[in-house]
Parts: sequence; C-alpha cells; structure tokens
Amino acid sequence: MISLYSDLHENHAPVFEFFRGERVPCFETPARAAFVKARLLQAGHELRPPHVDSQAVLNQVHSARYLAFLESAWSNWLALAPGNAAQQPFPSVWPVRTLRSDVEPANFVARLGLYSMDNGSPLSAGTWAAAKAGADAAASAAALLGEGARAVFCCSRPPGHHAGADFMGGYCFLNNAAVAAQALRNNGLERVAVLDVDYHHGNGTQSIFYDRPDVLFVSLHGDPRTEYPFYLGHADETGEGAGAGFNLNLPLPAGATVGAWFHALEKACQRITQYGAQALVVSLGLDTFEDDPISTFALKLADFRRLGQHLTALGLPTVFVLEGGYAAEALGINAVEVLDGFEAGK
Amino acid sequence: MISLYSDLHENHAPVFEFFRGERVPCFETPARAAFVKARLLQAGHELRPPHVDSQAVLNQVHSARYLAFLESAWSNWLALAPGNAAQQPFPSVWPVRTLRSDVEPANFVARLGLYSMDNGSPLSAGTWAAAKAGADAAASAAALLGEGARAVFCCSRPPGHHAGADFMGGYCFLNNAAVAAQALRNNGLERVAVLDVDYHHGNGTQSIFYDRPDVLFVSLHGDPRTEYPFYLGHADETGEGAGAGFNLNLPLPAGATVGAWFHALEKACQRITQYGAQALVVSLGLDTFEDDPISTFALKLADFRRLGQHLTALGLPTVFVLEGGYAAEALGINAVEVLDGFEAGK
Repeated sequence: MISLYSDLHENHAPVFEFFRGERVPCFETPARAAFVKARLLQAGHELRPPHVDSQAVLNQVHSARYLAFLESAWSNWLALAPGNAAQQPFPSVWPVRTLRSDVEPANFVARLGLYSMDNGSPLSAGTWAAAKAGADAAASAAALLGEGARAVFCCSRPPGHHAGADFMGGYCFLNNAAVAAQALRNNGLERVAVLDVDYHHGNGTQSIFYDRPDVLFVSLHGDPRTEYPFYLGHADETGEGAGAGFNLNLPLPAGATVGAWFHALEKACQRITQYGAQALVVSLGLDTFEDDPISTFALKLADFRRLGQHLTALGLPTVFVLEGGYAAEALGINAVEVLDGFEAGK
Repeated sequence: MISLYSDLHENHAPVFEFFRGERVPCFETPARAAFVKARLLQAGHELRPPHVDSQAVLNQVHSARYLAFLESAWSNWLALAPGNAAQQPFPSVWPVRTLRSDVEPANFVARLGLYSMDNGSPLSAGTWAAAKAGADAAASAAALLGEGARAVFCCSRPPGHHAGADFMGGYCFLNNAAVAAQALRNNGLERVAVLDVDYHHGNGTQSIFYDRPDVLFVSLHGDPRTEYPFYLGHADETGEGAGAGFNLNLPLPAGATVGAWFHALEKACQRITQYGAQALVVSLGLDTFEDDPISTFALKLADFRRLGQHLTALGLPTVFVLEGGYAAEALGINAVEVLDGFEAGK
C-alpha cells in the first residue's frame, strides 16, 4: 500500500497544553508520526510525499475567513509582542449561544476564540505548514485512487476530524478526512463514505457533511455524554435537509468491550454497503488501543488487524487518514497492523 | 441612599485566573466590595442586608438547568476527586457553531463548558452563595423601589452583566441587573430601562431581554472589535421580534475621550426618556476609570459625580448594581461619587 508522508508535520510542535487547569506536555507530538513512519518502512511499505495541492478542496470544506486566519495566525501572533515566538497563544472567550460568530473581531485572541471549540489545540510556528501538508496528502490520496490505487494511507499529523468548516479543536486544524472525501467527489464519484473509528467522535467531519447526501458519515466512538468532544456524536444525529439519513453515530459507553466495538463496526459496515458507497475514507484513530493514555476502550494488537480485514471486505477504494492515538510508540505498530490486515484480506 | 450589602460575597474567592495562557491572581476579589462598603460607611450611607429571596425571579431570567448546575457545581466538583477543594475547575471545550447545547453531558468539565462563555470565571466554594446574595440584593432593591425608595445601591459581587440566561462569563454568574429589571416588571411597572455603563458590553443582560419590548437595554462600552466580550455589543444589534428597537448599543473605540463618553451617555439618556421608562436599572461598572488595569477609558473622579448627576436628571426610581471595576481601592471612592452625584442632583 502506498503511504503518503511529509516531514513538514514536524513543524507543528507546540510544547504544552492545558489539562484540568494545569500545563502538561502536549499529547499530540511529532514523535507520533515518526513512530508510524518508522514502522511503515520496517514493514516494507512505500512512502511518497504528497503531490497534489489541496487549496481548492480546502476552499470547499472550510470557510475562507477561517483559512485566512489559520494561515496567517502565527505571523499575526508574532507581530503582537516581542517574545511571542517563545509563547503559545490560547483563546480565552468563545462565541456560544446568543453571542455572534458573524463579525470577526480585530483582537487576535478573540479571533482565535472565534475559530476554536476548545483551548486544547495550541498553535506553533509551523502549524499551517504541517496541517496543509496533511490536507495535501488527503488530496493526493484521492488522486491516487482516481489513478487506480486500491488504498492509500496518509501518515499525517496534526489530525483533522475535530476541525469544523470554520474552527479548530481537539488538536485538529484542517479536516483531512473531509478533504479526501470532497476530492473523491470532485473526481466524479457520486457517493463517498467516511468511516471514523477514532475513540473520539469526528464532530468536524460530521458537521461539514451534515446536510449532504453525497457523503455518508459513520462513526463509532466513546459516548459524548462522558467523552470528548462532548457536544456532538449522539445517536439521534442523523443528518438534516438533503443530508437527512446520511449520518450514523454509534456511540459506545466508556469502557465498552472489544466485542461491543466490533458489533458496532459491523453495523457501520452494513450501512456503508447499503449506501452504495463508491469509495471509503477511514478516519483512522488508534486511541481505541488498550494502553492509550486518554481513552477507555481496550483493543489489542490483533484487533487492529481484524479491523483492517473488516474494512477490506467492503471492497472499496480506500483512503486511510491518521487521526488520534496517543500511545505514541504503539501507534505505528497498530496502524500498520490495520493496513496489513486490509492488504492481507484482499 | 440605601445600600444593600451581604458579607456572603466574601465566599466567592477564587485564587487565580488565566491571562494570556498564564496563571495570574484574580482581578475580581473580595477586596473590591470591601473597599466600596468601607467608603459607603465613611460617607454616611445606610447599609442593609438583602431581605428578598430572588429565586422566583432567577427562574424567570435564567434557565432551570443552568441554575441547577451552578447551585450544585462546587459540591459536584468536590465529589470528583479528593483534593479538589484546593483546585479550581476550568472548562476546556465550548459548544460553538454546529455543536449542541441541548444535551447536558454527564462529564463535569463538559457541563462547565456548556454553561460558560470563557475560561475567565473561576468557581470557588462559595460562588453560589455569593452570587445568590447579589441576586437577592437586586430583588430587594426592586422591592424597596416598590415601597417608594428613590434609589438603592446593590454593593454586590461577583458582578452579573456578562451572565446570560444559561451561561457564566466575565466573572459573572447570576445577572443581577436582569433580576432587578424583571423584579420591577413583576411589581407592575410596564417599561423598565437598563443602562449599562461598565467598560465592557453587558452581553448577558442584552441577550436576556433581546426579544422583549418591556425592558429597554442601553449600553455604552468599549468597541467589542477589540474589547471583551468581543462577540456582542455592536451598534447594529437593535433587538429582535417583539424586542426590535428596544436595544441600543453605543460602542466607543478603545481609548475614547471622556468627552466622547459623555456624548454617548447623553444619547443613552435621551433614548431612555423617549422610551418612557418607569424605572431604571444602572449596571454600574467603574472600569471606565483612568487607572483601571484592564480598560482604556479615562474617567476621573469628578466624572463619576457628573455621571450621577446625568442619571438623576432622568427622574426615575433607580437601582444601581455594582458591576466591574478593578482598581479596587479607587472603586469605593468612584462608586460613592456616582451615588452622591445622583443624590445631590435631585
């Protein structure tokens, strides 16, 4: 299987985040992709750089003002005060109910809040370059499918599935899965399915396609009543308008068994088959792993191979996009297990 | 003038807040109300405790689920982990665009985010008791006006005007100005005006009455393009539905002159007179003071007396509610100057 990888991800390297009001080292680190890359090479996978500029597709899935903000955010932050290069900007106010999102403030921190859903997605100098390389990988993967590839893996970070059309969140800035799905649509496919198997609901991807019938979004994840992102991912979210019926959430209680997880996966796969998808995008989060530090499911190594086998049985051209997974050293092993399970199951 | 004061405000005493990603000591401290109380006594004002339970009025201006959350927040926080008594809870995720506010998560921090607009309103053990005493003072002041008092000052903290129907923010938890206005309405007055002269727009009060013609909201404040709360307070917000035309925002650029401020005050007073208000609630923020540490206007001591004179010229029964003002020692002097200007101008 072709894997797409760019060193530019290393440029996104914030130092700390907040956890329960305390500064803690970032969970989402450059080492994550490095471990996956190393394991890919060890397992004999082919690595290529992204070769397609995703800008046109980004303009379809994200708002123009959000993209403009994100691309210029670090330079605007540096311009605010000498010494900001050694600081991380964090938002402090968010436009919740009754507050306006239509007027962009001039204040930088207020704009950061306007374009954020949390205070857990720190920016660093190379965030745009890294996120853009990830989006380029997603667009490149779609192009490779158009050229006949059976499957492509995007070994990218930061992840993307929490990023909405106009906000960052959950370590995510640009929605790589949405870029891949939209690029596949642009290639002429009529029905694309996104399957999100990350421990956390892919609220960004869901919201981007929520009113569209041409991209089915299916997710299995920890119940948002107790798990991040908390405010989306319930079973009663089934799409709206033309998209009604084209969103399927399969939340599982924190601590759900591996058996329950695979039962949900089967339902997800049935829905994708019933939909008549012509291609599949997998938001491949691996934080369902038993040793993940911030999640409560208990998948073991062999379960990731089994996941790959389930996915290949769908018989669809497939883009895998790396999402979460914070047991960094195991991340590579688990990711490659999914891919090898997919290939072996052909 | 009667002033209402309860020692219960001292129970709201969080230790630190976040400012630009750094922990800093709280700006909104018990010393603020203590300075005002001391100055009131020094100037010969009468201090009384609140004597009316505001619960029924709170149920009219805040949502039931928000009140239930706020009242139980500290005990729920303590129940989460041993040692939490020495910690302050902070939200980490907020339900912005596309995320849901209708489902209350079970996770405590997620509920805190659901009911917050920022991460700048830390809770402490006595937050509910202090905020409730402030709301009781507002309801008591309205009752005293019903008994014929010309004016009553609520020497309360935490402030209230940023608190919406179902969220806290900007050091505010319960909207005292809204409680006073609603209580005056409940007393049978048909038209009540709220005038907010705090440096920061009173987004909570505006939003609570935005669709109602029976409470006029008028505010002069720093332009939200650059000043907190950033996402509300623009001149084009004029009310909606039955409330269309009954909201007047007079934003002034950061650094505006005292002359410009009083020009805006005159416009505000004209609108209140034109409205035919039968009573006035003044959200008395004093962070327009030249030495305020987080604001950019430049009112001097004599200007606060002049403010009081302008307000008394409206000829309305008036409830003053203390809002912001963070030059703590000057706060009492400035507040009493407004009240004395009001009384002298009768």
